[in-house]
Amino acid sequence: MTKATLTISSKNYSSWSLRGWLLCRMAGLEFEEKRIDIDDPEQRQELLLLSPSVLVPLLTHDGVTVWDTLAIAEYLAETMPDAGLLPADRVARAHCRAVSGEMHSGFHNLRSALPMSLKARHKSFKIFSGARPDVERIKTIWSECLAAYGGPFMFGSSPTVADAMYAPVCTRFRTYAVELEAPHAGYCEVILDWSLMQEWTRDALAEPEDIIELDVEF
Amino acid sequence: MTKATLTISSKNYSSWSLRGWLLCRMAGLEFEEKRIDIDDPEQRQELLLLSPSVLVPLLTHDGVTVWDTLAIAEYLAETMPDAGLLPADRVARAHCRAVSGEMHSGFHNLRSALPMSLKARHKSFKIFSGARPDVERIKTIWSECLAAYGGPFMFGSSPTVADAMYAPVCTRFRTYAVELEAPHAGYCEVILDWSLMQEWTRDALAEPEDIIELDVEF
Repeated sequence: MTKATLTISSKNYSSWSLRGWLLCRMAGLEFEEKRIDIDDPEQRQELLLLSPSVLVPLLTHDGVTVWDTLAIAEYLAETMPDAGLLPADRVARAHCRAVSGEMHSGFHNLRSALPMSLKARHKSFKIFSGARPDVERIKTIWSECLAAYGGPFMFGSSPTVADAMYAPVCTRFRTYAVELEAPHAGYCEVILDWSLMQEWTRDALAEPEDIIELDVEF
Repeated sequence: MTKATLTISSKNYSSWSLRGWLLCRMAGLEFEEKRIDIDDPEQRQELLLLSPSVLVPLLTHDGVTVWDTLAIAEYLAETMPDAGLLPADRVARAHCRAVSGEMHSGFHNLRSALPMSLKARHKSFKIFSGARPDVERIKTIWSECLAAYGGPFMFGSSPTVADAMYAPVCTRFRTYAVELEAPHAGYCEVILDWSLMQEWTRDALAEPEDIIELDVEF
């Protein structure tokens, strides 16, 4: 069996890459990281897209080629059932998939107004009014999950697909100094302190500067 | 056990409602349809959204409340494993999830330029240039699936989650007279002739006129 590979792009900018990478690591998968060539103009476009695409994240493993973050999540969950990527309880599992699906298909205003950039810090940042309902909806989702399952992760004591889906949001809230109170501030701390997030962030900070100019206004 | 309910909105306009309804019927679930109140201004907004939301489709079944179309698909697939919502082969299953995920999170230009309206027919319609790559990508996905699995559905002889995800696109291609050749024209015919699509379409055509004014230009 050839070794698994996960294709990703910038660790600083690509929130979909981060999600796919977290899922593979959470699953305990051994894989090689493959970077798309960011000097290729077509592939540079990838980083500017707000939606996931067929380019990243893309996982090859044991004869399977699977792209799209949720498809990778479900593939890993069924291939490594003991990794706990999805909650064991069927009601919680459906809830986990629902909030993961919301992040996968929605929150476009948040994504475009507050793009992920692990290196950036804004002391004060005016959040575009269109993105505010997205921020509020995310807080509601976190409150409901933390209350129902007891934290510290969204579905209890260990991270699931949902935490991987919402992890980039925690970095955005830090980057753009979004004011948070309990329990949302505490949840963001848990995610940002998570060893896998620390590892990814170290790599992101070590990326060469200006590898790409994002077409967004700060 | 109380009877399952599926909350949907307009059968003429809501592509996410159509996807959720198809999935429940494909799973063999017995359920009652519940309509959101389209006279409620807040709920009317739902129909204008291009993304799915927590409002529709929403399934309650056996103590579970699950929203988001893909989450409903995965819930039904694990609850009714014999219904064949996902391909039995693991490689095909990963492929099915990948293309379903692409529709769930992408194709925004297509969705906004060619909104679903089963009642409408346009003899000639200029497709916004931004939506053309979406149309081409969909054709590529269909070609690859039909070649790999032999049709008539995307993953072989019976419909899967992927067909439910792409079914609204087939109605859009008809509504906006998008020119298609084999094998894409044939696939659209298969979907539009599918008994479940015929049943949904009959109900859509019987809906009162002008229940909502879509904020789009035809």
